[in-house]
Amino acid sequence: MGKGRLEAFSDGVLAIIITIMVLEMKVPHGDTMGELLPLAPVFLSYVLSFIYVGIYWNNHHHMLHACNRVSGGILWANLHLLFWLSLFPFVTGWMGENHFAAVPAALYGFVLLAAALAYWLLQQTIIKSQGTDSRLKVAIGNDWKGKISPVLYLLGIVSAFWWNGVALAFYALVALLWLVPDRRIEKSLEM
Amino acid sequence: MGKGRLEAFSDGVLAIIITIMVLEMKVPHGDTMGELLPLAPVFLSYVLSFIYVGIYWNNHHHMLHACNRVSGGILWANLHLLFWLSLFPFVTGWMGENHFAAVPAALYGFVLLAAALAYWLLQQTIIKSQGTDSRLKVAIGNDWKGKISPVLYLLGIVSAFWWNGVALAFYALVALLWLVPDRRIEKSLEM
Amino acid sequence: MGKGRLEAFSDGVLAIIITIMVLEMKVPHGDTMGELLPLAPVFLSYVLSFIYVGIYWNNHHHMLHACNRVSGGILWANLHLLFWLSLFPFVTGWMGENHFAAVPAALYGFVLLAAALAYWLLQQTIIKSQGTDSRLKVAIGNDWKGKISPVLYLLGIVSAFWWNGVALAFYALVALLWLVPDRRIEKSLEM
Amino acid sequence: MGKGRLEAFSDGVLAIIITIMVLEMKVPHGDTMGELLPLAPVFLSYVLSFIYVGIYWNNHHHMLHACNRVSGGILWANLHLLFWLSLFPFVTGWMGENHFAAVPAALYGFVLLAAALAYWLLQQTIIKSQGTDSRLKVAIGNDWKGKISPVLYLLGIVSAFWWNGVALAFYALVALLWLVPDRRIEKSLEM
Repeated sequence: MGKGRLEAFSDGVLAIIITIMVLEMKVPHGDTMGELLPLAPVFLSYVLSFIYVGIYWNNHHHMLHACNRVSGGILWANLHLLFWLSLFPFVTGWMGENHFAAVPAALYGFVLLAAALAYWLLQQTIIKSQGTDSRLKVAIGNDWKGKISPVLYLLGIVSAFWWNGVALAFYALVALLWLVPDRRIEKSLEM
Repeated sequence: MGKGRLEAFSDGVLAIIITIMVLEMKVPHGDTMGELLPLAPVFLSYVLSFIYVGIYWNNHHHMLHACNRVSGGILWANLHLLFWLSLFPFVTGWMGENHFAAVPAALYGFVLLAAALAYWLLQQTIIKSQGTDSRLKVAIGNDWKGKISPVLYLLGIVSAFWWNGVALAFYALVALLWLVPDRRIEKSLEM
Repeated sequence: MGKGRLEAFSDGVLAIIITIMVLEMKVPHGDTMGELLPLAPVFLSYVLSFIYVGIYWNNHHHMLHACNRVSGGILWANLHLLFWLSLFPFVTGWMGENHFAAVPAALYGFVLLAAALAYWLLQQTIIKSQGTDSRLKVAIGNDWKGKISPVLYLLGIVSAFWWNGVALAFYALVALLWLVPDRRIEKSLEM
Repeated sequence: MGKGRLEAFSDGVLAIIITIMVLEMKVPHGDTMGELLPLAPVFLSYVLSFIYVGIYWNNHHHMLHACNRVSGGILWANLHLLFWLSLFPFVTGWMGENHFAAVPAALYGFVLLAAALAYWLLQQTIIKSQGTDSRLKVAIGNDWKGKISPVLYLLGIVSAFWWNGVALAFYALVALLWLVPDRRIEKSLEM
């Protein structure tokens, strides 16, 4: 079975998620600069989530590049990842509207964590399907980013109940880590 | 006529359906854990519908794999299936918002039933277009899942008026049946 | 220049139009059968518009099949068609919510008419780009459906101000005319 | 790395942006012609933004045509462009709802300006990745449109605070400039 339709469907879902998130930023009724100020946290949340979806799309792109056959297990592991990503608009809107309050900021981190675990599960499913000489396994190497991200998300979730600025800093830190394109797979594929 | 654009259009519609369903889960205004509790039934309905759309995408994928030529009849049978699937966000939202009340839960089952019949109709249209040695006909075999699903949906619809927990159990049971990937077609194509 | 991306973009826009139209059917707050009744006209409008978008997708598919090169003029004629189709959710929602009242029903017909003229313009642009031995020109033949549709739309618009049932009958009649797949192009391409 | 998925994802995002903008045009509750009049500025804003997204899609199409390899930098420059374009529905809705008032009209121009700079950045990233004999660099020539557009946007933003009709005229002028398809790249590719 080819992977073209899996990519097309995932691209479609990611494109829609990234675009409908902006709908949570409701058009204000007044026409002054002051009307925009209350939207600042919603806008900031949108920027952070946009970057996250961009990172997922980017890494998903690379991961499937190192995958030739798509099994039923991979299809479902992929849908599982898309499920958690589909909750981004909801948690982004909730966190933004409540100015990064404790519970919404922690829930945002929880969905980030769940998406990271779902991504890891998809990665493992592909590696397992490729057998002992898995191209993807070689490509990701020790996967230190994949291992440290859940820890940082957990720290973010916990700190959300103490000081939400720290929680956001953790979430932004993970995004920064991944923003650097994953050259391991690129290099490995070129070899 | 190729099937590429039929797949692309169907993927697009399914990707949008699966993503806009989440919009029925309205962002609450407060910022406490208690604000999320009333959303639990909407969330559960969303999970169930997400799995259903995933199953349809998955099986649609397999079915078109066993189909080479796309006729006008197949195009319209496919649009007919997409029509019923496009009602998923509406019935999912209605059932969730009313905490699985009798009529919304029965309507949910009715749309599931209609989508199942539309899927069966599309399958028959493809088989008919392939003539006596239809690859798809061989692939689906006795199609016991396709035959038992409408019966289970009907049982779910009727039981919705007595005890909605039973209705949900029937709907979840059919999803479980199909969650197991349809290896018949995979096997048949490998041969 | 290839036509793949033009098809992909058009498919995307049509898939989104067909799916967001369903969002105009707002989830009712009560849980009784009686809550669904007021939605009947919105549902009917949705069905009609769904069929229309299906017809446009179908014919667009056939038309581009008979087109090899995509010029700048074709790109813009295509976007012009998509513009009018993008107004379908708005006019469908307005007509449905107002139970096919005169002005909304006439505006619905006006958008149908504008989309039909935009389709004709796109067709002419492709034919012109193909020169004297245009494949598409041969394929559409005398194009009686394309010629009679605007007349029927106009009759529908005018009758909307007298008796909206007649207007709807005209709109449904045009849909029926086109529902029969356009075998001319299929035949012509097979030759 | 291929560019197919980059194009598919961008097409998806652009298709969704162009279609959800129409959702800002809320269905009025009454059924008279008079109900449509207040929507005129929203409609006008929608038409202008639709043309802009069409221009971006068109030029994006041409630009990627002159690009063979997609690097991580290009992926992120492309996402950066999509980010600013994703704000179109918000600023279009705000400007339309407030009848082209000063601040919303200036913000609209600001997002147009930011998108133009993001487009230029993507162009430069591709040219840089192609080295000294860049096909795209030859194709765009002196790029006078790309150089004059930001100046016209700035003039529009400033004039929004004096006379919003002039601001709109500037925005429409830039659209007109680009509406003429960019034959430089087409010609260059044919050679």
